[in-house]
Amino acid sequence: MANPLESLCVVLVSPRNPLNIGAAARAMSNFGCFQLRLVTPYGPSYSEARSAVGAAPLLQKAAEYAVLADAVADCQVVVGTTAARDRDLQHPLRTLEQGGKLIRAAMVSGRVALVFGSEKRGLSNNDFSHCHWLMRIPTRDEHSSMNLGQAVAVCLYELSRGWRNKRSVTSFPSATSAQQERITLQFVDALLASGYIKTGATSSTEKKVRRLVRGMALKQDDADALQGMLRKVVWKLDH
Amino acid sequence: MANPLESLCVVLVSPRNPLNIGAAARAMSNFGCFQLRLVTPYGPSYSEARSAVGAAPLLQKAAEYAVLADAVADCQVVVGTTAARDRDLQHPLRTLEQGGKLIRAAMVSGRVALVFGSEKRGLSNNDFSHCHWLMRIPTRDEHSSMNLGQAVAVCLYELSRGWRNKRSVTSFPSATSAQQERITLQFVDALLASGYIKTGATSSTEKKVRRLVRGMALKQDDADALQGMLRKVVWKLDH
Repeated sequence: MANPLESLCVVLVSPRNPLNIGAAARAMSNFGCFQLRLVTPYGPSYSEARSAVGAAPLLQKAAEYAVLADAVADCQVVVGTTAARDRDLQHPLRTLEQGGKLIRAAMVSGRVALVFGSEKRGLSNNDFSHCHWLMRIPTRDEHSSMNLGQAVAVCLYELSRGWRNKRSVTSFPSATSAQQERITLQFVDALLASGYIKTGATSSTEKKVRRLVRGMALKQDDADALQGMLRKVVWKLDH
Repeated sequence: MANPLESLCVVLVSPRNPLNIGAAARAMSNFGCFQLRLVTPYGPSYSEARSAVGAAPLLQKAAEYAVLADAVADCQVVVGTTAARDRDLQHPLRTLEQGGKLIRAAMVSGRVALVFGSEKRGLSNNDFSHCHWLMRIPTRDEHSSMNLGQAVAVCLYELSRGWRNKRSVTSFPSATSAQQERITLQFVDALLASGYIKTGATSSTEKKVRRLVRGMALKQDDADALQGMLRKVVWKLDH
């Protein structure tokens, strides 16, 4: 039987505490998930983390990125994690149990990124705009925020839970995050050229468009077609 | 509905690392399990642990015992945890998923103890003799031993799974077919105005765009936003 978590990347955005990076890596090793990606980790923490029990090989292969977009560029589905349920969320929010089903289905045909924010602040709204949807671990309202290493462990446990019951499904490959980002930027170009975006207001509309494009759940063929269409529209608007 | 974990005690036997005691307490607080019992904890660790995020009240109420028998004296069911599956076990060994069902059933009518051994050696055969049966978290054979705080978090997640998950989560209404058709026609207008569609070839591209827009599975809010954007783009292309 194939390892169920081999298509999963765990992405830690701006982790501060070396013990948490180490704990995340150890849980990954426990559950058979081997792709760790770090976005702007705090340098000293990262070197210190390498001693986590049994997780050294995994930490040595961990990749570092300057921005989240690059860390998830080759992933078809990007899932952000959050403890907050009342935050004014623009994304669908699913529990780990519900989301886990979708992630397991998505892993059959592509790569999935599971993104965790920093210990103190979690993921930002800008980080969220790179995600297709959000997921939370059901915890007590009065104390919902989990330790980073424990949150990673619980998510990986759920994702490998009941794997044997999974039935294989036919599906078409989804667009990668890089394709979705190209479409986002083309769309923003079209909105700028058309005057929909006023000068200075680019950033908030860009986030809106990014979220909109992620919400489209495009297949690769569709993404190719859409890029061709937008290219022509932008060209025409510019001439 | 009552908190499902109020009849559960987490018992840590000879924990050494203050961070692990703190992490166990934090996970307990996250999942609504409030009875922590410590058997011969290493003194300095225990005092240091009291600073765990959000877990101070729980740690202050934690009870200390000299022997495991006393710590589980008032419990109807005592479950030991272990990472080893090949150890020559005299007890029934269940996975967390299987065991979780039995524990949930037992908690309805009585108190259950979930016992974790020390970080280094786990539970001894003598400790096992106080247990009714044993439970393991399904991990990779090559690296089965989990961090203590993470193991506690994963067990409590499984035991409260299906209870907190049932509560509602955020979801957004989908766009109607009428909205999707308006977007389709606007898009086709943009493609005509930009020259992407040559005269006479409208029909096949229109079908393609219609399928593409349906495939986007747009939410109503997103459909509204997209219509506004396309309206502006078409207007600009026409002027």
